[in-house]
Amino acid sequence: MNDADILLAHGSGGKLTQELLDRVFFRYFGNVLLNKKDDAAVWSLPSTHCLRMAITTDSYVVKPIFFPGGDIGKLAVCGTINDLAMTGAQPLYLTAGFIIEEGFLISDLEKIVASMAKTAQLAKIEIIAGDTKVVEKGDVDRLFINTAGIGTIDESIDISSINAKPGDAVILSGPVDMHGLAVLSQREGLRFSFPLASDCAPLNGLVARMVNHKNQIHCLRDPTRGGLATTLNELAIQSQVGIEIEEASIPVPEEVRAACEMLGLDPLYVANEGKLVAIVASEAEKAILERMHSHPYGREGAVIGRVTADHPGRVALKTRFGARRILSLLNGEQLPRIC
Amino acid sequence: MNDADILLAHGSGGKLTQELLDRVFFRYFGNVLLNKKDDAAVWSLPSTHCLRMAITTDSYVVKPIFFPGGDIGKLAVCGTINDLAMTGAQPLYLTAGFIIEEGFLISDLEKIVASMAKTAQLAKIEIIAGDTKVVEKGDVDRLFINTAGIGTIDESIDISSINAKPGDAVILSGPVDMHGLAVLSQREGLRFSFPLASDCAPLNGLVARMVNHKNQIHCLRDPTRGGLATTLNELAIQSQVGIEIEEASIPVPEEVRAACEMLGLDPLYVANEGKLVAIVASEAEKAILERMHSHPYGREGAVIGRVTADHPGRVALKTRFGARRILSLLNGEQLPRIC
Repeated sequence: MNDADILLAHGSGGKLTQELLDRVFFRYFGNVLLNKKDDAAVWSLPSTHCLRMAITTDSYVVKPIFFPGGDIGKLAVCGTINDLAMTGAQPLYLTAGFIIEEGFLISDLEKIVASMAKTAQLAKIEIIAGDTKVVEKGDVDRLFINTAGIGTIDESIDISSINAKPGDAVILSGPVDMHGLAVLSQREGLRFSFPLASDCAPLNGLVARMVNHKNQIHCLRDPTRGGLATTLNELAIQSQVGIEIEEASIPVPEEVRAACEMLGLDPLYVANEGKLVAIVASEAEKAILERMHSHPYGREGAVIGRVTADHPGRVALKTRFGARRILSLLNGEQLPRIC
Repeated sequence: MNDADILLAHGSGGKLTQELLDRVFFRYFGNVLLNKKDDAAVWSLPSTHCLRMAITTDSYVVKPIFFPGGDIGKLAVCGTINDLAMTGAQPLYLTAGFIIEEGFLISDLEKIVASMAKTAQLAKIEIIAGDTKVVEKGDVDRLFINTAGIGTIDESIDISSINAKPGDAVILSGPVDMHGLAVLSQREGLRFSFPLASDCAPLNGLVARMVNHKNQIHCLRDPTRGGLATTLNELAIQSQVGIEIEEASIPVPEEVRAACEMLGLDPLYVANEGKLVAIVASEAEKAILERMHSHPYGREGAVIGRVTADHPGRVALKTRFGARRILSLLNGEQLPRIC
């Protein structure tokens, strides 16, 4: 242990905690609300602001903590922003809780915190409250981060996983599987002949461009753990509708499909971190796709299927060869510690 | 591994995750907002409601997870409620993120979740969003919980750690050291001849009784990690005032003092979970103490010292023997994993 390592005392609440907070967290996250150092951050909504709010939380345990296209910090900011955005909310603020293994390199912590600050800035949100705990060597695998997020939702928006209706179009915002494969390849030391990076990105800007005030977006969800197939199943179950998907219209890059085959992974169950599924009124599908295509994270958005009144709670896939199979919820665990 | 154990697949986002959510989390936490199962919970503030809000987060890594007077779940609810209450906020909602070790007993998880639900009910708040991750055996020490909380604050209230003023009274809500000693004794298998239980409790009800609309409460803080001495130091530093404390007026039960002495612990640095320090205008101290005494968690509240213009940023203790010593921030780590 030396100056460069996290010590148990960095989590004591005492002198070393203060030093770590100043050296790392306040340096990168510093803002008016956080800097007050009260037990909770306090702010006022402008009185003209809507009073409808959204809150969410996720813990991040991704392994390894650095991977092509991102790191655990970027993931912790994007993931929680995206969960807010999937209700149509505009994220306002995040909290961040760190659980750090004794002996963790302070320089690595700094890289991660800097990455969080950069991502937060990109997404135009602030991190206004936080917590740091240090546990003994061996009692946590390096670093876990929890973020919670809060946002406001315009009163006119009604996006929920119970809102899919027969006839609706199912839109996917772009190619799948990049995050899961990037993390897996880094973890297992695999090399592919094509550049592979996580798609991890904050989707609040894309969602802001997609929504309008006619409630034509019925459901939004980001297909993370369990992948596209699991997300579609959740929507089918919660809305009590059927979903029919065309395999040929799902954008899986050819190299990615080949890599999945080699690794024995079903591409429809691999996790994504910068994609969304939108279930939208069919009369609005063209307009929404156009708006998506004008945004960097929605450029490759496409309709991949339809909602149907048949087989409520189930998702059917029409394969490239014309066969039809039922896609179930993920059974068992495909890739642990993917987020 | 059998039916009674947490499996990696319980954290997959797939079928087993849904089963665990229904079997444990929705069963105990279930409420209108949580049950919608959207990516974020959405609610509307009544339009008559104030627009001033507070948010906070803490991760809980206490070891052991069950201890006399509480468990990690009760702690995770109380700790975050208390951080909100320390700004004068009335807590509304909590989020809860669980990181669980593969092989953890589902029955233990259920006990902890039930304890959280009971504490939430007692404190009149709801848990409306959550997340569950499972990591491989050995990659986390049993169970860590993060909670984030949100509340509203009346516009007329201005409680902050920067508000202490010379002449103010320093009030402590009751005897110190119960939480730290209870956790330590359980961890180390120590037995004392007196009953010892954590003081872990939600303080929002006590704070609601204390506040009035004259802003006579300047600072509130719960002396958790680092104990009373560290909390007083934080307030002295952040308000740039001195604080003078009378050792004789600090309620440390005699048996607790003896146990601390035996264990080589300074009672002023041992963690508490159901106590608060209030710095209040001297003209209001009697009225505030009276209101505190009418509440179960404030019955033994007492003035333990004064704020002074001397030695800004420092805390001085007048000992029982009339000597004076400076109490510094906790140096190093006294008791790791106390919360």
